Amino acid sequence: MINLPNIPQRPSKLREEGLTMVMDKGLSNIEAEALMDSSKEYIDIIKFGFGTALVTNNIKDKIKLYKKNNIKVYLGGTLFEAFIIRNMFKEYCDLITKLELDTVEISDGSIKMEHKQKCEYINQLSNKNLNVFSEVGYKSSKKIMAPSKWIKLMEKEIEAGSWKVIAEARESGNVGLYRSGGEVRSDLIEEILTRIPKNKILWEAPQKTQQVFFIKLLGANVNLGNIGTNDVIPLECLRLGLRGDTFFNFIK
Amino acid sequence: MINLPNIPQRPSKLREEGLTMVMDKGLSNIEAEALMDSSKEYIDIIKFGFGTALVTNNIKDKIKLYKKNNIKVYLGGTLFEAFIIRNMFKEYCDLITKLELDTVEISDGSIKMEHKQKCEYINQLSNKNLNVFSEVGYKSSKKIMAPSKWIKLMEKEIEAGSWKVIAEARESGNVGLYRSGGEVRSDLIEEILTRIPKNKILWEAPQKTQQVFFIKLLGANVNLGNIGTNDVIPLECLRLGLRGDTFFNFIK
Amino acid sequence: MINLPNIPQRPSKLREEGLTMVMDKGLSNIEAEALMDSSKEYIDIIKFGFGTALVTNNIKDKIKLYKKNNIKVYLGGTLFEAFIIRNMFKEYCDLITKLELDTVEISDGSIKMEHKQKCEYINQLSNKNLNVFSEVGYKSSKKIMAPSKWIKLMEKEIEAGSWKVIAEARESGNVGLYRSGGEVRSDLIEEILTRIPKNKILWEAPQKTQQVFFIKLLGANVNLGNIGTNDVIPLECLRLGLRGDTFFNFIK
Repeated sequence: MINLPNIPQRPSKLREEGLTMVMDKGLSNIEAEALMDSSKEYIDIIKFGFGTALVTNNIKDKIKLYKKNNIKVYLGGTLFEAFIIRNMFKEYCDLITKLELDTVEISDGSIKMEHKQKCEYINQLSNKNLNVFSEVGYKSSKKIMAPSKWIKLMEKEIEAGSWKVIAEARESGNVGLYRSGGEVRSDLIEEILTRIPKNKILWEAPQKTQQVFFIKLLGANVNLGNIGTNDVIPLECLRLGLRGDTFFNFIK
Repeated sequence: MINLPNIPQRPSKLREEGLTMVMDKGLSNIEAEALMDSSKEYIDIIKFGFGTALVTNNIKDKIKLYKKNNIKVYLGGTLFEAFIIRNMFKEYCDLITKLELDTVEISDGSIKMEHKQKCEYINQLSNKNLNVFSEVGYKSSKKIMAPSKWIKLMEKEIEAGSWKVIAEARESGNVGLYRSGGEVRSDLIEEILTRIPKNKILWEAPQKTQQVFFIKLLGANVNLGNIGTNDVIPLECLRLGLRGDTFFNFIK
Repeated sequence: MINLPNIPQRPSKLREEGLTMVMDKGLSNIEAEALMDSSKEYIDIIKFGFGTALVTNNIKDKIKLYKKNNIKVYLGGTLFEAFIIRNMFKEYCDLITKLELDTVEISDGSIKMEHKQKCEYINQLSNKNLNVFSEVGYKSSKKIMAPSKWIKLMEKEIEAGSWKVIAEARESGNVGLYRSGGEVRSDLIEEILTRIPKNKILWEAPQKTQQVFFIKLLGANVNLGNIGTNDVIPLECLRLGLRGDTFFNFIK
């Protein structure tokens, strides 16, 4: 429309940095089309949140639509865990194939899993030419992990073949990276960043204050996830310094 | 799509248990169609919240659409009370007839009404072949009712002809069944359940933590209401144990 | 549909009082059409929130659509400030012309600006036959202004040519007129009203409790802004006493 100076540059899609991952919690086809109409350039990845993929009847249409718009699509980690706890890893792989997905999430937020086993799943799926997200962090607010453990798990999972590691926050943004009121565990994050390259991490950051924190810390092109479908354009404004919260970030 | 073992069985529509009641606060026709497209199997009842029915210009189209999808439709209790306080019960009945509704709500959350009078309204409308919801509980956070009173009112209203009694929470989920911060008054609920059959009650539970509470207490097929249009599929996932919060509920 | 007695009269559009200003944060065309379908009579003004106008690709279509429905349309004040801080006032005026807008907002919520300069902008743009909103109040929760200063700024801006002054609250409703928890600074508001005519002010009131406060204080036809797209019809119900919160307001 008009080029303002001192607006940060965003790489165009497909990009390796500055990713926005959006959570689809059961959009109808027409809502999915509306989302593409307004926001396709700004969305890199769409997750069908938790087990919604089994409950929605239009999942194949949406996968086709999203992929056509150069968006990676995957099933929420909770669904992976629902198969694993039932001893159905093979059936899960069949489902990925049947849905023609190119991306997958391996997580252990709700169930217990040996970390070696988790890394084997990562390795196996990344060898099938799938983009593997692996998620670190618990869904429970009662389980707090030390920074050194976050780092160790992330290192091993990247080594095993993860394309990006996801730092857990749930849809609500009140566990994992955050305290129960949503405040950022900033010490934890700075510690993680001393060892893990920032472009290998996708931070779940559903709340605006959390998005602002990461943009101020890591710049416009930080990888952020669990973004609500109505927050894609507001987030893009935050990235570009076109909203009060980040207004002065990029002005020299 | 795929059948996972140990997922609770949901009766299909029209059902008597496991009901989901959704609040429409003024959807446009196209939004209503999108809702049907994604969620018609999961919605049993739609309420036009408070007085929205008088303010929206497409109410007849929506009634037709929802009924075609085997959904019961009714006008929010506040609208009933707006007629009653103006001494216009007859006009209210005319409106129900004119809109060809098969379901109605009798409530006294905002106005004072003799309970005998309330039961007479219930009786009169249920004799007209209408499904009657009657609502128990105040909309004010300052008025707390003792469990014994909840029980007595519910018993009388069921006797008078209520199809289900609704336990009040408002759209926000912070009165009636809940404290002002949204926490469940669990003692109250357990007390009520000692006397009223669970399938005669529809619990207003707009917040996720409230839905989780009832699913954990009463199982996948509890009757829940005041569900937001975007929360229908997430709620269905909670019912089925396909979300972190209820993940272990149904796994043996 | 049916005329209830003792429902307040709402002037029809174009009106000078009882205005509802809605924030569009990046609606797709189809969502914008759905909004018009359900709510065109109730919306007087639409603001493209903060810098979204530069990020959305369908802005011209939406301007046309909204204007066709007798809605004034303007760009968020933050975008004005983004041009000003880059010394690009002329380019901003060109943008207004290019987009064929008839309304504009002058604000200084994020940047420092001499008040004389602000009034000059107001004067200049109002002389171009534009409806000028000017906004008073800071976006930061750390900067609290005394009531006397609110009044002085408002008086000067109205004098300089503002059609209405906007009292700041942000999208979240937790600064300016409100405390950080969203509670209304009622002393401030009553003080302002001793000097500024109520129909010259548009109050940002994104939260329901805030809307209820103003309707109880100033009646059904108070000017309210930063209303979410899903809250237009619920707000209209509040104005008309068709919701629990304002139920008794207009009943004699």
